[in-house]
Amino acid sequence: MKKSLGAQTILYPAPVWVIGTYDQENKPNVMTASWAGICCSSPPCVSVSLRKATYTFGNITERKAFTVNIPSKKYVQEADYFGLASGKNVNKLSATALTPVKSSLVDAPYIEEFPLVIECKLLHTLEIGLHTLFVGEIIDVKSDEAIIGKNSMPDMEKLKTFLFSPGDRKYYKTGAYLAQAFSAGKEKKGTRNG
Amino acid sequence: MKKSLGAQTILYPAPVWVIGTYDQENKPNVMTASWAGICCSSPPCVSVSLRKATYTFGNITERKAFTVNIPSKKYVQEADYFGLASGKNVNKLSATALTPVKSSLVDAPYIEEFPLVIECKLLHTLEIGLHTLFVGEIIDVKSDEAIIGKNSMPDMEKLKTFLFSPGDRKYYKTGAYLAQAFSAGKEKKGTRNG
Repeated sequence: MKKSLGAQTILYPAPVWVIGTYDQENKPNVMTASWAGICCSSPPCVSVSLRKATYTFGNITERKAFTVNIPSKKYVQEADYFGLASGKNVNKLSATALTPVKSSLVDAPYIEEFPLVIECKLLHTLEIGLHTLFVGEIIDVKSDEAIIGKNSMPDMEKLKTFLFSPGDRKYYKTGAYLAQAFSAGKEKKGTRNG
Repeated sequence: MKKSLGAQTILYPAPVWVIGTYDQENKPNVMTASWAGICCSSPPCVSVSLRKATYTFGNITERKAFTVNIPSKKYVQEADYFGLASGKNVNKLSATALTPVKSSLVDAPYIEEFPLVIECKLLHTLEIGLHTLFVGEIIDVKSDEAIIGKNSMPDMEKLKTFLFSPGDRKYYKTGAYLAQAFSAGKEKKGTRNG
């Protein structure tokens, strides 16, 4: 018997992604978003939902571009701060001594110190309610060499990113390897379905 | 200097969520999706992107409802299998001896054994490319008592769910507590901005 928790955004895990944009005066801005995810394989796309009240909302609407910057856990304070302060009042990158880099592919900045960054062009805008969902087409993914694993892909154990737990508003580390996807279930399939 | 990995869906973490639906003959079906995330706070909504070729795509289009079932790591084999097999050919719940429960709120089944389930009504459909993004309004969240923490919310350390690493297609456990959100950055804010 399950307990009803009501109509709430209680799903796990949620990502902690820092969205990079330029404002009208070319000031780089960053904000943290967790209402987000990959949303299409071809073209490769990511969705990020933002409230209209955010500074980033206006920047994406104007510049039609954004970056997704994935922090390692050493930047948890910075990432949390990027969700607390507003670019209307402060230059958050200067305040944290992090370095904005102008993307050569899209009209948005990325954070040099973060290990993995994704450069996106705005493809769709969907009004939902308090949040508006932006779909960005992924133009490139850029990675620090230090987090690349055996198969030339980022290695979760080197990336050391973290995740957001919406119910109790806590950050958790990512953990150890569990199983190979598109493989672990084959045994079950074989056993049960012949 | 960062290394370009090209235009790929390489972002971390991605969730491992099992989508529950009914087909035209009321057969319950489940499939695993990782191109998904929370997408609005009010109304509370979740987005799930699916290929048209999936059995679940047709079910959601017909029945205008789905559930999101969040597995604990003990169900990693089942969750992986749900992404390998198709409901066109098999009853995946029977095959894994898991129990479908008819939701009393939406026209979809949830999995009794999974610790956390979310019942959704279809609100929007957005064509992107290979994937179509479905936005579901969250009507209720139902939780096993055993995973509820101190503040009446699910506790990540009791839920023991896992995540998907897209680059190398591996599942990873969720890890230990890192920091309190909307709090960890306050010190930085205070220090740097006065």
